[in-house]
Amino acid sequence: VSETAGIDTRVGDLVAALPVDIVLTDPDLLVSYAHDESRFTERHAPALVLLPRTTDEVSLCLASAHRLGLPVVTRGAGSGLSGAANPPPGAVVLSTRRLNNIVDIDTLDRIAVVQPGVVTTAVRAAVAEHGLLYPPDPGSVDISSIGGNVATNAGGMCCVKYGVTGDFVLALEVVLADGEVLRTGRRTIKGVAGYDLTSLFVGSEGTLGVITEVTLRLLPAPAAPMTLLATFPDLRAAGDAVQAIIATGTTPSMLELLDRTTIGAIEQLSPLGFDESVGAVLLVQSDSPDAAEDITSFEKACLENRASDAVSSSDADESAMLLQARRLALPALERLGDWLLDDVCVPRSRVVELITRVEDIAVREGVTIGVFGHAGDGNMHPTVIFDESEETSRAAALRAFNAITEAALELGGTITGEHGVGRLKTAWLARELEPASQRVQAAIRQALDPNAVLNPGAVL
Amino acid sequence: VSETAGIDTRVGDLVAALPVDIVLTDPDLLVSYAHDESRFTERHAPALVLLPRTTDEVSLCLASAHRLGLPVVTRGAGSGLSGAANPPPGAVVLSTRRLNNIVDIDTLDRIAVVQPGVVTTAVRAAVAEHGLLYPPDPGSVDISSIGGNVATNAGGMCCVKYGVTGDFVLALEVVLADGEVLRTGRRTIKGVAGYDLTSLFVGSEGTLGVITEVTLRLLPAPAAPMTLLATFPDLRAAGDAVQAIIATGTTPSMLELLDRTTIGAIEQLSPLGFDESVGAVLLVQSDSPDAAEDITSFEKACLENRASDAVSSSDADESAMLLQARRLALPALERLGDWLLDDVCVPRSRVVELITRVEDIAVREGVTIGVFGHAGDGNMHPTVIFDESEETSRAAALRAFNAITEAALELGGTITGEHGVGRLKTAWLARELEPASQRVQAAIRQALDPNAVLNPGAVL
Repeated sequence: VSETAGIDTRVGDLVAALPVDIVLTDPDLLVSYAHDESRFTERHAPALVLLPRTTDEVSLCLASAHRLGLPVVTRGAGSGLSGAANPPPGAVVLSTRRLNNIVDIDTLDRIAVVQPGVVTTAVRAAVAEHGLLYPPDPGSVDISSIGGNVATNAGGMCCVKYGVTGDFVLALEVVLADGEVLRTGRRTIKGVAGYDLTSLFVGSEGTLGVITEVTLRLLPAPAAPMTLLATFPDLRAAGDAVQAIIATGTTPSMLELLDRTTIGAIEQLSPLGFDESVGAVLLVQSDSPDAAEDITSFEKACLENRASDAVSSSDADESAMLLQARRLALPALERLGDWLLDDVCVPRSRVVELITRVEDIAVREGVTIGVFGHAGDGNMHPTVIFDESEETSRAAALRAFNAITEAALELGGTITGEHGVGRLKTAWLARELEPASQRVQAAIRQALDPNAVLNPGAVL
Repeated sequence: VSETAGIDTRVGDLVAALPVDIVLTDPDLLVSYAHDESRFTERHAPALVLLPRTTDEVSLCLASAHRLGLPVVTRGAGSGLSGAANPPPGAVVLSTRRLNNIVDIDTLDRIAVVQPGVVTTAVRAAVAEHGLLYPPDPGSVDISSIGGNVATNAGGMCCVKYGVTGDFVLALEVVLADGEVLRTGRRTIKGVAGYDLTSLFVGSEGTLGVITEVTLRLLPAPAAPMTLLATFPDLRAAGDAVQAIIATGTTPSMLELLDRTTIGAIEQLSPLGFDESVGAVLLVQSDSPDAAEDITSFEKACLENRASDAVSSSDADESAMLLQARRLALPALERLGDWLLDDVCVPRSRVVELITRVEDIAVREGVTIGVFGHAGDGNMHPTVIFDESEETSRAAALRAFNAITEAALELGGTITGEHGVGRLKTAWLARELEPASQRVQAAIRQALDPNAVLNPGAVL
């Protein structure tokens, strides 16, 4: 009782320390901040939700919580899939959604400065108006925020050519655990003055500080892409085609794979004409000035590796139609039941082996698992379909999920390519990282947050 | 006396703890390890030089030195320009030169695994045999080692298109201060499992650990480049042309600038036919499949911005001739006297302003300063020519050097683009970094090296 009383008093003290219009206390509202889009993660309504409007207010929030010893979990758009935004019992949620301005777009030096709450697609649209490209395009691009993208080092379909979010972050403004404001990085493209704190905060999932401003590097907008869709009788043929495409030496701007299960689910949702003979689909784009030539060579690589069909187009509407299959992958799988989306990454040469193992796991556990993802960089999203209401189905799904993650590690891969560790994969992180790495990571975390108030229980 | 005696005993204890054939004790040999290629940095012969042949031996060296409290300074090829490899009094130097194997080249996943002592150009040549490119090409490419390149996040002429060394480092093996072996990163292109320790060690200049293995990401080898040389009556015209080239939306694979002073020095050394009317030279390359088309549009950008002449070639020999001017820049300036090379980086739009300020500084201090460098990414190398033997000349050179660094900061730039802080710019780092950043950097350093044995006095 005394512990609970202690927490309650501190929460009251925190409310008293902050402007009334940046604090949510209504239990009906708090409950909607209990979780992100992850499954199999604990859910607790936060003690409070803080909605700061400025860096100074973020600083005040953190300094006050720090003083009171109240844990703080930062929440972007809540679209995460690893539970990094799920508050542990008694924690306060700090939402970045009011920090939603595009501060500056510098067309000369190709830099955008944005606040963390800006939705990713809004950043992309704003810079596109100036003929510029912000490449990262996570599947959640229309709902996720830039702050969340930075906090998980989000990727997307662009990565095979352009890299991940972190490759475009030049500088950050971060509020540290005790409320101090830290600026990392710089507006220049190169620089080696001190440690690379920017990269340390990228992917740190709210455990080292609250990101309050992001300086992004932009690229000139590329040509409109040309798209190729190729079907294959089996997975191995598609895998061989991926290697052949990479071996051309020309890097596609997209190289996505759908497996048989995913294709079947898509056909059930919205028939696109894939019959039983289609064992795998590749979707390939090029946005280079030689897109037509590139696509011809990619098509050749597919046809030389047993593609049964290949269709390409440079027309925007036709391209959108071809991409429809990729866009429907998750919605189609979702229709089959409850879903648990994994996010593993293996060396590109091991993708076929990974998917083959996933197929075996599906048979063994008696569950449906659709696999789709970024074949060009080895980052796949095996998606386990199960029935949330049945304990045996839940257990089978979780066993399958764990077996997939295990398989990725065995194939020289990682437990998470772009979704982060959050609370879903903390036990797995201890498997991936050697003791020395765990010790160093914990030491860095402790150096930055000695009182352990930032997202306790997440990541490490 | 007792302190010195204490050090001597510990040095003897260290010798006793290590295999005899990895320790240099001959004073005549030790003196050659007193410094790198920097000027105006303190020089002291190390107490010992350690030449470990394996990661285990590096671990033994560090564990022993740690136990004895002896400071250790890691030395790559000794080509650094900031004094990071200059041992403070009483320190031991650990050379990585015997760790010089190329461990693996994986052509399928485009990865090279190399030991730190391998010379950069040897890595580039080895992967080129497999049709692959390791892009980073610091000016020291033929003499510097990969370990040193990683430790300073070295750049080069490739950066405008390809980025810096760190952009190609996927994973590291590092021996920590106490001898423990840490593996960071992974062989996959994407991954967000835990903090990005790899980026933390890149550019850390031997202050966080000793790099014993580097896993590099490779690219397909590009087409042979086409080269453009354009001359301009003045700096502003060249600066406008740089912006116009960038504005084409096509990224050149090289975009280098030489100022009037540098051109004059080159003409003195080896007449290439630049007369008094040449105020600036741009050297531009494209290695894309559309190189000819790219070079035509770059040439147009130059001619529309008052270029007095523009010559281009796709022939390898002719290209080499055109590049001769860039290659001779530093040797030509060196012939004018002793030199102090700066390494500042400003946003690309401020390059002309930076060089203009450098010209003013040269007049004010009565010294010659040639400016050349990477106009495409704003990283310039103003080179102060002075007379080492004259105290007044030395003082003027140092004042000019400091004024240049100051100007870079005022223009929103950084004190070092690619050479590192070392011992030359520690005071400047305290100017560039805000107190919060200094505090965080020091806390991280202390977390990794609590006894402060790694490169004390360097960087922070």
